[in-house]
Amino acid sequence: MLYWLDLFGVSVFAISGVLAAGKKQMDPFGAIILGIVTALGGGTLRDLLLGSTPVFWVINPTYIILSIVTSFITLLISNKIKFPYKVLVVADAFGLTLFAVLGVQKSIMLGHGAWISIIMGMLSGVAGGITRDVLSNEIPLIFRKELYATIALLSGILFYVTESLNISTNLGMILSVLLGFGLRLFALKKKLSLPRFDYRKE
Amino acid sequence: MLYWLDLFGVSVFAISGVLAAGKKQMDPFGAIILGIVTALGGGTLRDLLLGSTPVFWVINPTYIILSIVTSFITLLISNKIKFPYKVLVVADAFGLTLFAVLGVQKSIMLGHGAWISIIMGMLSGVAGGITRDVLSNEIPLIFRKELYATIALLSGILFYVTESLNISTNLGMILSVLLGFGLRLFALKKKLSLPRFDYRKE
Amino acid sequence: MLYWLDLFGVSVFAISGVLAAGKKQMDPFGAIILGIVTALGGGTLRDLLLGSTPVFWVINPTYIILSIVTSFITLLISNKIKFPYKVLVVADAFGLTLFAVLGVQKSIMLGHGAWISIIMGMLSGVAGGITRDVLSNEIPLIFRKELYATIALLSGILFYVTESLNISTNLGMILSVLLGFGLRLFALKKKLSLPRFDYRKE
Repeated sequence: MLYWLDLFGVSVFAISGVLAAGKKQMDPFGAIILGIVTALGGGTLRDLLLGSTPVFWVINPTYIILSIVTSFITLLISNKIKFPYKVLVVADAFGLTLFAVLGVQKSIMLGHGAWISIIMGMLSGVAGGITRDVLSNEIPLIFRKELYATIALLSGILFYVTESLNISTNLGMILSVLLGFGLRLFALKKKLSLPRFDYRKE
Repeated sequence: MLYWLDLFGVSVFAISGVLAAGKKQMDPFGAIILGIVTALGGGTLRDLLLGSTPVFWVINPTYIILSIVTSFITLLISNKIKFPYKVLVVADAFGLTLFAVLGVQKSIMLGHGAWISIIMGMLSGVAGGITRDVLSNEIPLIFRKELYATIALLSGILFYVTESLNISTNLGMILSVLLGFGLRLFALKKKLSLPRFDYRKE
Repeated sequence: MLYWLDLFGVSVFAISGVLAAGKKQMDPFGAIILGIVTALGGGTLRDLLLGSTPVFWVINPTYIILSIVTSFITLLISNKIKFPYKVLVVADAFGLTLFAVLGVQKSIMLGHGAWISIIMGMLSGVAGGITRDVLSNEIPLIFRKELYATIALLSGILFYVTESLNISTNLGMILSVLLGFGLRLFALKKKLSLPRFDYRKE
């Protein structure tokens, strides 16, 4: 079940990478690479920092094959059908919180404490999107978007707490993902965001 | 022989990095760093992802010394002599396919299968150029250039096939590099490229 | 003593990252992430390339906790008080050379030779700032700023020489940091810089 959710998260992020490439009129091959990087970037950074190498998708190539296939299909159909933008945003919110929670879990399993586990969770959730934005030459959306990273952080913290309280891992995971997912949708609907931090030396 | 070709590829990419820095009027020191990053970036990413650390140029410093020396010489002479641009493009095409094939070989040696080996080969060929472009604040050329990554992919696939068929490694390598090299020159001459992928949400 | 200097360097770089975020009107959360990346980026790259994983701040979370706390405080006070810009520049010069020297020391301890140790020292000093600039979508300052990377290099070389001559590590470290620190302040005061490298194909 968890494994399938994980693969679902990968697919969603791959789609968002391909669509970002389309906005910059990249060539189709570049679009597929951007799809892959967005889908796998977060987990890759987490594994490199934790020293858990080879990284997860080298150990289990299903992840990268799925990224390629999803990117390819997105490329083929995105201009034919009117892509349901709302569905994508909802799915992206789901992937964000799911990856954050899975990142916390992997870090706990490797024996790390609260700070590192929660930070790794957040990184797993947001790093793919950051890389996507850097490669398409934009200031990463995470630095401007409604509570994006904040929500990855909150989901990770909640999951860490449920694990510490010995609540069943499955239940803790469901609760944490649902919390982040709900908050993100609420933030999007209400256009909630933190106030800008503006510093200009005169 | 292979080792010398490898070093030749490193030099060529170092030159391309330094010239990119010159187009942005960087300082000479920055230009040398960009030369190094372009020359060693692809192999470095490959080694990090495969968990083959310390990375290759830490184990054998010849690579980074050569990158520094080549970058330095390029800096000294590039404004004195009229740099033969065509020679550079041809050499770059050679480096691209050579690095792709060497990346596949290293992955096979480390015991990885078809998908991972071919993807690592492609990454080895293109990642140095991507990093060069990100650091000089441009959308990476790979996302726009004539069949660039496609050719790294095709060379890698051909080499993987010849290895699987137990054809001599040297012969397989020569064939794969020549195929990619020829295709790349043909694509440049005919200005072949994939059609742009254009996606704009209205 | 050394450990406290190291933590001081981390704090200084965190502040510079947060202020860079403020110039781009990022959200507060993004600003904190930029502070962390600037503070820990150099040492992280060094550890990844040397294969010394998990990276240093995963092993000792004090570093990342300090980065977060410093970034948070900077955020709170930077618009209230007039931030002493000169103090920041001086502290940044200190962090640059200190990190370079510490990078050389870690590489020597891991058994690497002169080239690798000195290059790793330079990377440790400058990589955090490069990442900060890439994430805020600018050409990294290192490629334009007065003798910035050159000074990290010189400090690293001097420290390597003092270590090779069996001069006491503490003395060598103090000398190398002071040399780089003094040079950097001199370069800033005199607005010294290397001549631009300008290459344009017509």
